[in-house]
Amino acid sequence: MIHLQMLRKSWQTRSRKKFSQLFSTISQISSQQSKPPSFGIAFDIDGVVLRGTRTIGGAARALRRLYDGSGDLKVPFVFLTNGGGVREAKRAAELSELLGVNISPSQVLQGHSPFKQLVNRFKNELVVAVGKGEPAVVMTEYGFKNVISIDEYALCFDNIDPLAPHKKWGTMEVAVNRTRKCNINSERVQAAFVVSDSVDWSRDIQVLCDILRTGGLPASEEGLQPPLYFAHDDLKYQGAFPSERFGMGAFRIALESVFNSIHTEALKYTYYGKPNPVAFKNAEVVLKQLASSLYHDLNVENHVNSGSHDFQTLYMIGDNPVVDIKGARQAGNPWFSILTRTGVFKGNHDSNHPEFPANLVVDTVEDAVNFIMRNEHQIID
Amino acid sequence: MIHLQMLRKSWQTRSRKKFSQLFSTISQISSQQSKPPSFGIAFDIDGVVLRGTRTIGGAARALRRLYDGSGDLKVPFVFLTNGGGVREAKRAAELSELLGVNISPSQVLQGHSPFKQLVNRFKNELVVAVGKGEPAVVMTEYGFKNVISIDEYALCFDNIDPLAPHKKWGTMEVAVNRTRKCNINSERVQAAFVVSDSVDWSRDIQVLCDILRTGGLPASEEGLQPPLYFAHDDLKYQGAFPSERFGMGAFRIALESVFNSIHTEALKYTYYGKPNPVAFKNAEVVLKQLASSLYHDLNVENHVNSGSHDFQTLYMIGDNPVVDIKGARQAGNPWFSILTRTGVFKGNHDSNHPEFPANLVVDTVEDAVNFIMRNEHQIID
Repeated sequence: MIHLQMLRKSWQTRSRKKFSQLFSTISQISSQQSKPPSFGIAFDIDGVVLRGTRTIGGAARALRRLYDGSGDLKVPFVFLTNGGGVREAKRAAELSELLGVNISPSQVLQGHSPFKQLVNRFKNELVVAVGKGEPAVVMTEYGFKNVISIDEYALCFDNIDPLAPHKKWGTMEVAVNRTRKCNINSERVQAAFVVSDSVDWSRDIQVLCDILRTGGLPASEEGLQPPLYFAHDDLKYQGAFPSERFGMGAFRIALESVFNSIHTEALKYTYYGKPNPVAFKNAEVVLKQLASSLYHDLNVENHVNSGSHDFQTLYMIGDNPVVDIKGARQAGNPWFSILTRTGVFKGNHDSNHPEFPANLVVDTVEDAVNFIMRNEHQIID
Repeated sequence: MIHLQMLRKSWQTRSRKKFSQLFSTISQISSQQSKPPSFGIAFDIDGVVLRGTRTIGGAARALRRLYDGSGDLKVPFVFLTNGGGVREAKRAAELSELLGVNISPSQVLQGHSPFKQLVNRFKNELVVAVGKGEPAVVMTEYGFKNVISIDEYALCFDNIDPLAPHKKWGTMEVAVNRTRKCNINSERVQAAFVVSDSVDWSRDIQVLCDILRTGGLPASEEGLQPPLYFAHDDLKYQGAFPSERFGMGAFRIALESVFNSIHTEALKYTYYGKPNPVAFKNAEVVLKQLASSLYHDLNVENHVNSGSHDFQTLYMIGDNPVVDIKGARQAGNPWFSILTRTGVFKGNHDSNHPEFPANLVVDTVEDAVNFIMRNEHQIID
């Protein structure tokens, strides 16, 4: 345990939250295994382990099988979700609570996590963050220094949303921020980030069009469109309602069609998240970091850059053929796709998706984990 | 005045609000002129006489010129607006207050006024009313017996709007109605009416798609699309913000593009309001009723059916070339179009709209009325 103690010491001196959060998981793994696991698992969340805030498909039992009897992680896994709007640390705490296992922030990969890669480009530029939850807080934690939520931004322009008087939002905390923020209504917005699902479509489509068609300053002359980024492009997802609900992709379609009806140049945008191969590559890197921490002599640099370990198999467990399965297929080796019937996909027994068939179709996430553990010759507790 | 007294008596015995409201106007007109006026005026509201709730372009002075010194109407005019969401009587009272003249409900023609023509088809059917204000109250006043607002309808389906927890609406009065209304979630919706601007686009687009793709019952199998009616199709309008705001046409584009992305058959819909020629024909009928009431021996039947009177000129005063001017041009004789520069159209002096040129372009509504009064050889007070 000498290395672990050294590691603990070095992290503590750095006192960097994400490292200390990651620490517990890695120490659990590294304290018990001597050779690296040859496989890892990426779980989708909505429609696989949760529906709304309810666990489904024996998710809690399934996940407990990835920990040993004393609650220490024995199989490297991550959550690979397009959802978001909250900080990874907060989401990890929520999932730990709901699923009854100890999940670290490093195991939560959300649609907007890749926005981190754009910090250097927009670090000190004025950028607008859109979506439910705390999108500006998320962006600030990623390192963006001059980010404002569209909620606060819209309040800086009188009458920009003519429907506002008909919306009975509780705006107290936003009103407080108003004086602090309203120096920005002469400054041009350099980029817009849709971090999570837009709540107020009528206002967000109006204000985004105002920003995007004027080069970043509502009510000014037409100008070059600032970059627009979406965390993902899911058209629909399985929530608590019996039929699928519209997601960020539907908002993108609405925004794009309205923008293109008032502007000669078509809307330009970029989206991340599944099925984008970048999301799967990123998941593989994080899983390697978790796996290698079981084995290598640990030190922070080695841990963070660890890419030496290779997996024989990475399992993607998802409910959405056009997002999870299509993405895993595009990512290719070593990804193996497992489709559950607890979400978007509702095919009969033994059926598969015609356009994006999974390597395996099962009823629930618990069936998927049982298959994986058998397949990997793991002793069933 | 014998006829007037008889008329007053017959109306009083009917005690019908709209007649008694109409009465004052007609009695004013009829008490002062012996021959019918050869012209009438239709005013657009937003961007012509009002911006938000502020009068513009000398509107109050201009309208006073259509009344004599004692405040009695001498020139038949109506407001022909695509806006709406409130009962015509309520809108007339608001306009009277803002403009300082006595306007009767019969002089207010809103985008949704033609929905009255559909009462016979849907009188006892379950229909959903969408939009700001009191869309279900408007539809009920038109004679629809089984109408529910989409606000109340959505509350009957748990989790139909996954974003609802992020919306801090004051739902008390809706919650009260909930128990009363929720027998409807097994009954199929037979038609949807967009009465005024949708406030909550994300919910309304979700719920309307749920209704329209299932033949009227969210979460059931796909079915024949129920009819969908829009009060109008204005893409944008001039509100209180310096640049135009999105209107019902933008909502239609968003709904249509999202619906068509999840459904094989394209969305079918009907819209009323300007520039639809029906709106101008209806305005002409109402103006004839007002004008003839100056002249004919009055009785209710004669008044209501009066179509004998012919105008030499009907003036349409609007700010939006593709709505007001295009509409007046399509309606043809006797319509004469006047475009103001106080709203959507912002052309320089002496310029006109290239695609839909008006017969006359002026700065303000007051300039328009001054032109009309000179042109019609009316004595300027």
